[in-house]
Amino acid sequence: MRTYLDHNATTPLRAEARAAMIDAMDVVGNPSSVHSEGRGAKMLVEHARAQVAELVGCKPQQVVFTSSATEAAALAVAQKERHGGSFAALPTEHDCLGVWSERALPSAFDRSGAMTYIAAPTGLIAQSGANSETGIMRPDRAVAGSGDGYSTICDITQMAGKVAVTYGDVTPSYAILSAHKLGGPKGIGALINFTADDPAPMLRGGGQEMNRRSGTENIVGIAGFGAAAQAAGADVAAGRWDEVAQFRNILENAIAAVSPETIFVGKAVERLPNTSCMITPGWKGETQVMQMDLAGFAISAGSACSSGKVKASKVLGAMGFDENEAACAIRVSLGLETTKDDVMRFAESWAAKYDRYKSRAA
Amino acid sequence: MRTYLDHNATTPLRAEARAAMIDAMDVVGNPSSVHSEGRGAKMLVEHARAQVAELVGCKPQQVVFTSSATEAAALAVAQKERHGGSFAALPTEHDCLGVWSERALPSAFDRSGAMTYIAAPTGLIAQSGANSETGIMRPDRAVAGSGDGYSTICDITQMAGKVAVTYGDVTPSYAILSAHKLGGPKGIGALINFTADDPAPMLRGGGQEMNRRSGTENIVGIAGFGAAAQAAGADVAAGRWDEVAQFRNILENAIAAVSPETIFVGKAVERLPNTSCMITPGWKGETQVMQMDLAGFAISAGSACSSGKVKASKVLGAMGFDENEAACAIRVSLGLETTKDDVMRFAESWAAKYDRYKSRAA
Repeated sequence: MRTYLDHNATTPLRAEARAAMIDAMDVVGNPSSVHSEGRGAKMLVEHARAQVAELVGCKPQQVVFTSSATEAAALAVAQKERHGGSFAALPTEHDCLGVWSERALPSAFDRSGAMTYIAAPTGLIAQSGANSETGIMRPDRAVAGSGDGYSTICDITQMAGKVAVTYGDVTPSYAILSAHKLGGPKGIGALINFTADDPAPMLRGGGQEMNRRSGTENIVGIAGFGAAAQAAGADVAAGRWDEVAQFRNILENAIAAVSPETIFVGKAVERLPNTSCMITPGWKGETQVMQMDLAGFAISAGSACSSGKVKASKVLGAMGFDENEAACAIRVSLGLETTKDDVMRFAESWAAKYDRYKSRAA
Repeated sequence: MRTYLDHNATTPLRAEARAAMIDAMDVVGNPSSVHSEGRGAKMLVEHARAQVAELVGCKPQQVVFTSSATEAAALAVAQKERHGGSFAALPTEHDCLGVWSERALPSAFDRSGAMTYIAAPTGLIAQSGANSETGIMRPDRAVAGSGDGYSTICDITQMAGKVAVTYGDVTPSYAILSAHKLGGPKGIGALINFTADDPAPMLRGGGQEMNRRSGTENIVGIAGFGAAAQAAGADVAAGRWDEVAQFRNILENAIAAVSPETIFVGKAVERLPNTSCMITPGWKGETQVMQMDLAGFAISAGSACSSGKVKASKVLGAMGFDENEAACAIRVSLGLETTKDDVMRFAESWAAKYDRYKSRAA
């Protein structure tokens, strides 16, 4: 028996998404074709677009389907000439945005997770709605909006489908998200364009997505994204994540009871209901991940890169944890299907390994 | 009852692809994760990569999965600095390559479909393996390779899975293809990199696809692509398209018998086995498509753009057909599931409409 506690990396496919995807497999046409089959495929895309718009709180025409949040990030950053000409990301941003950052954003973090700008940002900037590694959100739990003199790309990939997507006084200029973090399939995402102008396309050719992103539409993925977005939005509205937060807290309390030294990153600030980032100084996160994997639990350590090697977390580094601490972090991220029994078994298994680690270290 | 004869626009999902996609829906992990679930997802991607490589006749590591042939085209064109600095496409290329063309390639076409370079090409150039509108291939039916002083991007989207993918003395530098033209799902494609250097990525972030294309992998789509590629390759090897070519010829003969004025584009040169591009001068292709759609047949007219409007074919224009002729073209493209009865019913229905058109025109 396996227990999957790595929902911030990717989620199991929701039943609603699975059903919509299987239905979409029978849609024969190309949405660009004018015949009946083509129009049927087009309708499917537009239905899913409305479902995603409802989750995000935007107009359907503001949704541009992309192959991932990564593609949506690149497309948003490519619009920087319209927003002062340069792009900057906080050091805590996901690599899909951080990789494009041209300058440091004057900001200060502390180990609790609080962040303040130490100078007014300018140009196009990125600020996530919720951090993927720690789950830390802004104090108001709202999407980071644009402000005086700057335009924002807000990464709502981890936020959407776990907490209500709400906005302060001003929306961001762009938001990005991905289906596979909210029970949809991998390989489909969206750019939400809140500006008055269509984004200049990065992928060009057939003129799909209203000339904003060419390439024949991922019908099956889009159908799954739409269905997952609708179901995820309903679950958020029904408060189903409150119980997940309880289980996360039960888990953290059980860990704290056996390991008083363990640091729960962001515990004092607003966090996603499902995420626990735990640092147990001296015990490598990579070792914990491997031991827990052998014991039947899937979790992650800091950020995983595609080579399978684990790097010390940049996010924790930016928050003021030193490299040794950052290397000793694990992320346990729960899903709606996670049970109290799952987290209790995890805590018990982790505690046994922790005891062995302590006795060896002694 | 509907009869789908627009396989060059997109194909119905093959049973093998469908089964592989449904299996992949149960693969929970992110291929970038180091735990058991992650490794399972990674294995699925690598299995599919080998299947696509087998179809294309390349090494698995030369396959870069993208979200479409359109994305693969953009990624290939983005490498132009390594190949002389400029990119040029023949006027007959698909828009996903044509849109990036910076200069005319000195070439001459004739109405039969023959093409000759009237000056040696230079830099990075595009030349398709088979034209999507007419099905016209090169005389040797091989993939267009690079040559002295130029590097080639060959669009094998229409060719792969319909005829054997073979190479002359030299491979191209890049090839692009798409799953949904060979019985796989829409929204997944590949760049085949035949050069010694990894392509510089356009999508950056998590470093997936060996740093050549970031973004969490479209697991379901990739699984479908792999299975479709394997099945399509087996069907080509088994000669199953020979019968399709017979049906296409039966169709053309039936049309010619009632409409001696109809021009079958490319009939005298090498063509894909499934494609018939027919010009009936004076009778708009758009009208034919709509009338045939109402009668239960899905076909296309020239190139369809995403707005649902039909433009006169650039391809036919480049071949020397005038705008009126180009506007009167339809493309009928058969699939492996097309029967002799399908094409006979199409010809009969078309002939009845043709008679009405002639009596009105008289």
